[in-house]
Amino acid sequence: MKSINIILSSIIITSACAAFAQENIRPGVAPIVSPQLDENGAVTFRLFAPNAKSVQLEGNILSGQKMVTEKGDTIPVSSIEMVPDNGVWSVTLQNLPADLYSYNFNVDGVKVIDPVNVHTERDVMNVSNVVLVPGEASEDYAIRAVPHGTVSQAWYHSSFKDSDRRLTIYTPAGYEAGTKRYPVLYLLHGMGGDETAWPTLGRATQILDNMIAAGTVEPMIVVMPNGNIDRDAAPGQSPLGFEVPEFYLPHTMDGSFEKHFPEIIEYIDSNYRTINDKDSRAIAGLSMGGFHSLNTAAAYPDKFSYLGLFSSAINPREFTTELPEIYANRDQKIRDLNSRGLKKFWIGIGVDDFLYGLNKDFRADLDADGIPYIYYESDGGHEWKNWRKYLHQFLPLLFK
Amino acid sequence: MKSINIILSSIIITSACAAFAQENIRPGVAPIVSPQLDENGAVTFRLFAPNAKSVQLEGNILSGQKMVTEKGDTIPVSSIEMVPDNGVWSVTLQNLPADLYSYNFNVDGVKVIDPVNVHTERDVMNVSNVVLVPGEASEDYAIRAVPHGTVSQAWYHSSFKDSDRRLTIYTPAGYEAGTKRYPVLYLLHGMGGDETAWPTLGRATQILDNMIAAGTVEPMIVVMPNGNIDRDAAPGQSPLGFEVPEFYLPHTMDGSFEKHFPEIIEYIDSNYRTINDKDSRAIAGLSMGGFHSLNTAAAYPDKFSYLGLFSSAINPREFTTELPEIYANRDQKIRDLNSRGLKKFWIGIGVDDFLYGLNKDFRADLDADGIPYIYYESDGGHEWKNWRKYLHQFLPLLFK
Repeated sequence: MKSINIILSSIIITSACAAFAQENIRPGVAPIVSPQLDENGAVTFRLFAPNAKSVQLEGNILSGQKMVTEKGDTIPVSSIEMVPDNGVWSVTLQNLPADLYSYNFNVDGVKVIDPVNVHTERDVMNVSNVVLVPGEASEDYAIRAVPHGTVSQAWYHSSFKDSDRRLTIYTPAGYEAGTKRYPVLYLLHGMGGDETAWPTLGRATQILDNMIAAGTVEPMIVVMPNGNIDRDAAPGQSPLGFEVPEFYLPHTMDGSFEKHFPEIIEYIDSNYRTINDKDSRAIAGLSMGGFHSLNTAAAYPDKFSYLGLFSSAINPREFTTELPEIYANRDQKIRDLNSRGLKKFWIGIGVDDFLYGLNKDFRADLDADGIPYIYYESDGGHEWKNWRKYLHQFLPLLFK
Repeated sequence: MKSINIILSSIIITSACAAFAQENIRPGVAPIVSPQLDENGAVTFRLFAPNAKSVQLEGNILSGQKMVTEKGDTIPVSSIEMVPDNGVWSVTLQNLPADLYSYNFNVDGVKVIDPVNVHTERDVMNVSNVVLVPGEASEDYAIRAVPHGTVSQAWYHSSFKDSDRRLTIYTPAGYEAGTKRYPVLYLLHGMGGDETAWPTLGRATQILDNMIAAGTVEPMIVVMPNGNIDRDAAPGQSPLGFEVPEFYLPHTMDGSFEKHFPEIIEYIDSNYRTINDKDSRAIAGLSMGGFHSLNTAAAYPDKFSYLGLFSSAINPREFTTELPEIYANRDQKIRDLNSRGLKKFWIGIGVDDFLYGLNKDFRADLDADGIPYIYYESDGGHEWKNWRKYLHQFLPLLFK
């Protein structure tokens, strides 16, 4: 057998040229950098598009930007014109608050993902680029050099359609090597979301890693199921294949998910080292997931001692038939839930949320019934920016 | 407390309009469908771009397409012109063989992800859409209604840079509920890849689910580490944040990964129900990962009874210093590995692979030394299409 020759393997040259093409498409010119993060929250976006007539920046990166109309009204900005220079279009946003943002470009009417930023996330039917503006408010959204939990995608059997259904499970750092048992938070997504929403857009696993490492949050197992019971898993992850995501799915708010929720608890308590009791179990969710959380806790009052509603839907979707049994007499069920010992009942919503009024009415009802809760009111509306913040507020209250 | 009113929650209306905007941007006109899969492997791609001057289809979806030049040479096609009709550009490819493909559009020189296909995958520095053309050859790449294994992203501690490093772990269906111990395959990616490559582009977890369910593959644990030992995790998953992926990373082929490989085995055998012996341990990889597999098996001849080289690199990258100790005397190490009992030594490569010649020389050396191996030669070159096929060939040979 020949001895090994030390050579520059041709694989490197071949593949690297293809790979770098995205970054440096004009020989002899510096590669495009986008996004470029500078100090004090200045972020510059660039796109090489020499033939474009107009290029705009879009996405929730603009959520804090306002403009004044001819009539003198201040209104939100939904897109910003980018300016060309030698074929490179750019725009700089100043003083962006620390947070996770999404963005994309629009080139002559076509939505375009930034070709030099490989970091994308899907929010229901939209794929966008992501950028994390660093700072104190976002430091727990970043992946830091702390012990990391394990994130698993597992499948439990549901009697609904007799199918296997996918969920995301976070087990805290040290779980595999230890023998300790842990409390469990069930963390639910909103309409159009799925079991991938909290671990991506919600930065839930980063928030957990960082807060557990800091000692402000108890080590816990966090279970993120798929609340669309008509689907086995997120789009692209079920036997439906690379399906087009649907916003309106059957059975999302008709009681089917809540009715079958005990199957999830049973799967988790049977297969993970949980503390299988009420005081070590929490449920929380955003929007439709808040609605699911409220009704699940109310339907099984011996199961949960912690309940969190983040920008929560309060009422189900319309029905042609009557209200499902599991949603009936909810007032009484909530009083019963409270009387059996609800250690923390947490409600958070933004002042601009379209569900603000319904939540206000709901809180008035709780007040009238003498049911205690913690209320957190934020700026903004129905958006991930708030749900990450609410999770960050809610987690330190659990299991103490 | 008020009784629940059955209403159409405004959340649905608000969010749905935003979500559907991608699909139906021209009121009163049918939504864009892309890709559209018809019978016999016909796939139509469409993009609404009324202001574009030219739109092309690109990606490995074209890998089988050829054109004849003016000189009469038949050459591969790297892009195909799409044709406009009322602002909708389209092209149909006929008779595509069943497989997983990637594609993107190019609009007036700008790379564009299909805005109505949310299914994307990153291959090193390129994000593309994916489409699965169904058929016998790709049926094990699809998610089918069979029992599914759990896919976890976990972190082990490495003494290299004293860091926690991420890996993907597949445990077969039934693992959580059972007490059985399983054999382990270590499955390694190529240069520029990471611990997310085999589970996404490689369809490894689907192939495992389907072949285990069919009884053709033994239930096994499959560990997919990150072979870039200078990085803790894939781009976007490490403390480096949303970094720009780099193709040339330090320490990828200098022996560091192989030297620290026992730390991975130790982590897996300590934390998972493995059968901790040589005959229940396999290692295989593609390209750089084949090189890593070969050298790891050779360096630890009591650890592995199965070795798979998929389009494998044979030689390390160039060094300014001398050959690392772990790569020295490899001929002798391979003879030693063989003499201790290598149950299966599998080599696969495509006839168009730029590493074909080096693999041929390597096989000649094995032949000269009387070392048996199984050789599989395919069409095509250095591409995922082949690596999925090789995994599909290799898995049934293990642990029997």
